[in-house]
Amino acid sequence: MSENNWWSAVRFGADGLVPVVAQERRSGDVLMLAYADRDALARTLRTGEAHYYSRSRRGPWRKGETSGHVQRVVEVRLDCDGDTVLLLVDQHGGIACHTGRERCFYKRLENGAWRETDPVLKDPAAIYGDG
Amino acid sequence: MSENNWWSAVRFGADGLVPVVAQERRSGDVLMLAYADRDALARTLRTGEAHYYSRSRRGPWRKGETSGHVQRVVEVRLDCDGDTVLLLVDQHGGIACHTGRERCFYKRLENGAWRETDPVLKDPAAIYGDG
Repeated sequence: MSENNWWSAVRFGADGLVPVVAQERRSGDVLMLAYADRDALARTLRTGEAHYYSRSRRGPWRKGETSGHVQRVVEVRLDCDGDTVLLLVDQHGGIACHTGRERCFYKRLENGAWRETDPVLKDPAAIYGDG
Repeated sequence: MSENNWWSAVRFGADGLVPVVAQERRSGDVLMLAYADRDALARTLRTGEAHYYSRSRRGPWRKGETSGHVQRVVEVRLDCDGDTVLLLVDQHGGIACHTGRERCFYKRLENGAWRETDPVLKDPAAIYGDG
């Protein structure tokens, strides 16, 4: 994907960030929501792998840089008012969440309480090492 | 769905809002991203229909209140760090976007430009009236 004026249609927030929804192409599952600045979007387009901006670390975040769970970007979409991006991705390893689950949305509301419905596919200690 | 302490796990932003992703249960399509305050989430749970907070109008927004395109909520999910909500919905009328399309993410990036890939299913003038 080339980089022309695609970013001019993206309405970044006052903090310079836009929310990005990552969806697994095959399962259709919504994996996670993260944020991107213009640089992260540009890197995503240039490399074909999802890059975000880490609000907690306050810096660039190549998804999978530590875990190896990179996201190959199949499709990039923008919503009607240009303030949200949707990525269709192939999730490497089938794990998007730092807890070792497929997706970050593993809690479902049931009778007024959040129940963890999704299994841990890989121990985070094995993903990230013990320290 | 009852209302106990479910909201204590939700991490609202400094603006009191949390992003909410709405996904069509049947098609799996991500329809839209909007924002909710605690009141909107409580109304969503109480009524079983999606309620948001309109940042542009700065007030409560019952999805479909004008268009009739309400979203019946099938499932409510929360992500690992509690700062994003995912709603699985049945989209009434099959139209979530104010442009008359199924979803707000109707623009796909192709060769550095956004192309509108999804058809308008109903003329917005017919949805909202001419004013």
